[in-house]
Amino acid sequence: MEELDLAGAFGTSASLALRLGQIVFSSSSLLFICLDVGFYSYTAFCYLVTVMGLVIPWSITLLVVDAYSVFIQYLPVQRRLIIIIFFGDMILSYLSLAAACSTASIADLLCEAGRSHCPSELCDRYRLSAAMAFLSWFLSSVSFVFNFWLFSSM
Amino acid sequence: MEELDLAGAFGTSASLALRLGQIVFSSSSLLFICLDVGFYSYTAFCYLVTVMGLVIPWSITLLVVDAYSVFIQYLPVQRRLIIIIFFGDMILSYLSLAAACSTASIADLLCEAGRSHCPSELCDRYRLSAAMAFLSWFLSSVSFVFNFWLFSSM
Repeated sequence: MEELDLAGAFGTSASLALRLGQIVFSSSSLLFICLDVGFYSYTAFCYLVTVMGLVIPWSITLLVVDAYSVFIQYLPVQRRLIIIIFFGDMILSYLSLAAACSTASIADLLCEAGRSHCPSELCDRYRLSAAMAFLSWFLSSVSFVFNFWLFSSM
Repeated sequence: MEELDLAGAFGTSASLALRLGQIVFSSSSLLFICLDVGFYSYTAFCYLVTVMGLVIPWSITLLVVDAYSVFIQYLPVQRRLIIIIFFGDMILSYLSLAAACSTASIADLLCEAGRSHCPSELCDRYRLSAAMAFLSWFLSSVSFVFNFWLFSSM
């Protein structure tokens, strides 16, 4: 129950910023792949949509908890809570990396193979979506590393 | 310089087993994708070959060091060495996950799209190669987590 100050770990303002970035990037990745695109045709795109649909509520929940801890009342760091958070971050960061890589490779294959498969503006959207998913993965993995560090130093 | 016993971290017999598994799986992934297959046509397959070409020497080096530490003479755990090892494991585990996902999604697309792109035995080899790369990623990430734990407890 002691007060541990590790920038980026649960309950700090750096963590709040990380969560905000995760929400922005995962939402934009989801919007780029979903809006006006028939993403059902490719397994990788469905997988990206599924993963982003998991990352967004997770990040929003932790954003709310971090904001409460930063602005309203300091929440004591509990070992059990940190286990759940670092485990969730680990799994979601691996899932989002997997989704980003699959989307990027499929987009690359479709757009290289010829324009018949995929018009130019769709290609750009697939690529943008993959790029946003990579950024979301990066922020998730930073959160994971900091929370793991906090957990192991408890 | 104190003696830290954390199963799976650098210098233990569990780490030796993990390194051995990484070598076996990454080599078999490389062999499945390389032998008698024109992998140059697809970016994702070239990427898998590159990544496995990095993972294999890294794992062999650490296997030798671990074997020396286990069988011949105990090596003291140095902070600087553990930083290098956990950083390398982290980067290689992320790279092999990325390569495995790209290969799996490309193999899925090629084999679903129709047999014209890819004969049946090639599809099986792509899938086997991706599966081996996933196993290699899993062992790398286990090594990373244990070495990170050891580093943060030093």
